Amino acid sequence: MLDALTGPDLTIDHVRDAHARIKPYIHRTPVLTSTYFNELTGAELFFKCENFQKAGAFKVRGASNAVFGLSDEMAEKGVATHSSGNHALSLSYAAGRRGIPCHVVMPRTAPEAKKAAVRGYGGIITECEPSTSSREAVFAEVQAATGAEFVHPYNDPRVIAGQATCSLELLEQAERLDAVIAPIGGGGMISGTCLTLSNLAPHMEIYAAEPDQADDAARSFRAGHIIADDAPVTVADGLKVPLKENTWHFVSHFVTDILTASEQEIIDAMKLTWQRMKIVMEASCAVPMATILRNPDVFRGKRVGVIITGGNVDLDKLPWIKG
Amino acid sequence: MLDALTGPDLTIDHVRDAHARIKPYIHRTPVLTSTYFNELTGAELFFKCENFQKAGAFKVRGASNAVFGLSDEMAEKGVATHSSGNHALSLSYAAGRRGIPCHVVMPRTAPEAKKAAVRGYGGIITECEPSTSSREAVFAEVQAATGAEFVHPYNDPRVIAGQATCSLELLEQAERLDAVIAPIGGGGMISGTCLTLSNLAPHMEIYAAEPDQADDAARSFRAGHIIADDAPVTVADGLKVPLKENTWHFVSHFVTDILTASEQEIIDAMKLTWQRMKIVMEASCAVPMATILRNPDVFRGKRVGVIITGGNVDLDKLPWIKG
Repeated sequence: MLDALTGPDLTIDHVRDAHARIKPYIHRTPVLTSTYFNELTGAELFFKCENFQKAGAFKVRGASNAVFGLSDEMAEKGVATHSSGNHALSLSYAAGRRGIPCHVVMPRTAPEAKKAAVRGYGGIITECEPSTSSREAVFAEVQAATGAEFVHPYNDPRVIAGQATCSLELLEQAERLDAVIAPIGGGGMISGTCLTLSNLAPHMEIYAAEPDQADDAARSFRAGHIIADDAPVTVADGLKVPLKENTWHFVSHFVTDILTASEQEIIDAMKLTWQRMKIVMEASCAVPMATILRNPDVFRGKRVGVIITGGNVDLDKLPWIKG
Repeated sequence: MLDALTGPDLTIDHVRDAHARIKPYIHRTPVLTSTYFNELTGAELFFKCENFQKAGAFKVRGASNAVFGLSDEMAEKGVATHSSGNHALSLSYAAGRRGIPCHVVMPRTAPEAKKAAVRGYGGIITECEPSTSSREAVFAEVQAATGAEFVHPYNDPRVIAGQATCSLELLEQAERLDAVIAPIGGGGMISGTCLTLSNLAPHMEIYAAEPDQADDAARSFRAGHIIADDAPVTVADGLKVPLKENTWHFVSHFVTDILTASEQEIIDAMKLTWQRMKIVMEASCAVPMATILRNPDVFRGKRVGVIITGGNVDLDKLPWIKG
């Protein structure tokens, strides 16, 4: 059964199955290029724009694979998660498309805009106190009451197989790539990237990009085991979560290197990308460009896929505007 | 000779010639759709994204047509204009591609960022005092000294034929459209749209969209002659300029209606488009969406092309953020 898999069990067939399963519910997002950034970096960059994805982020790939892979019997009881970010939106969207409930446990202190967004996609919110113990207790209650299937935002193999469909498309859309770079938080996108590329293009380099101020994945990578930080602070708020066993499997086996960037470098790269490419993307998505600019020798002369992971930004609070 | 034409002389062959001439220097910009906006408006909308165009705006079409249509002898002396907006960027870009000088007369009080952008595209700036008399005097001096060819931002038939290539692409990219809507300032884009559609799709409706606070084109349309306002104030700063004889020809003959929107409606539509479509576009580009939302009965049930004209925004000064 798909839900009993672990990371190492995943094969390229799981990715192909996932793509066939989720295709009706996702966009095949465009790949953009920029003369300006090519000249700036000396590399040839291909931006896979998941900010244009349904629900505004790549997370809808994994969430849809989990939701549409459920048996009818399991699906009936719905799905549940305790993310308050893009995974919650994506799972709500996917559940809505299947016509099943999606339960989201969120701290009562979460911004009203985030709650509204989850509700906008049909998610049912149960509030908890802003502490891990309360979140876990409330989540257990919700699951017990509903029997809903838990879908972890990134450690779930169904989710990893779903995220892996992004690189499957990228390989078709941009030929002869030498490398791919994507941001790393919990490692779902990078794991999916590793899963696809290690099977279909094992010569390609895979870089993960992380904030200096939340560099637990980079330190884990060098230490050879998972190091989890407690509540790191960074503008790239999608990248604060730690690796888990299934994503660590891919990171430790297949990633070429993990590069980091400062907060100011991330903000500068974010603003510059908005300015030159005219796209709205999250601070997290700017981390790869920030690391490319910090490490030009690593990328010069290469054809590089850059994964722009999401576009759900609070337009009232842009990090380069002092409020 | 192309530069001796007037608006009424222009034919669809001029548009086809323009397209062949400028193709190597422009992007065939994508057409995006949005489930969200379709549901919100009850129409089927096709967004022609000229914000992704070279130099960040549709104006590069007209500027390139003018620049690459010059004889070698004329080209040698360069081109000149006194716009300080997207036309100056576009003309500088096109001249740079041809390897000829582009002279731009700009008030010395213009924002440093605008001057830097023009210089970034290779434009040569001559500063004037911030008055019409100084601008005209300095421009005459520059022209006398250089012999550069004046390219008006919108009243020039070469420019109109260039802008007309945008609808040529749109007709190929979105089938069976019932209407097109675009913002109107001086009328260059709308005139080009009229030129193409009146020849190739005469059944299609053509709507122009304008701020309430700069509604000189709407009042001209109703009065039957050009009414030019002195220095209107609007957030849609690309739309402040008045119609001229060549654009008036197209507006008065081929436009279905001119609709207007308030400043708040424009800002709301701008922010909503950034939020839902994840694209950076100018306030001017939000005026069509603002008028669609104000006049839902006009568009409901129709397939409508919406021209997003440009993406050159000052990211430090967004109109929904109080600074």
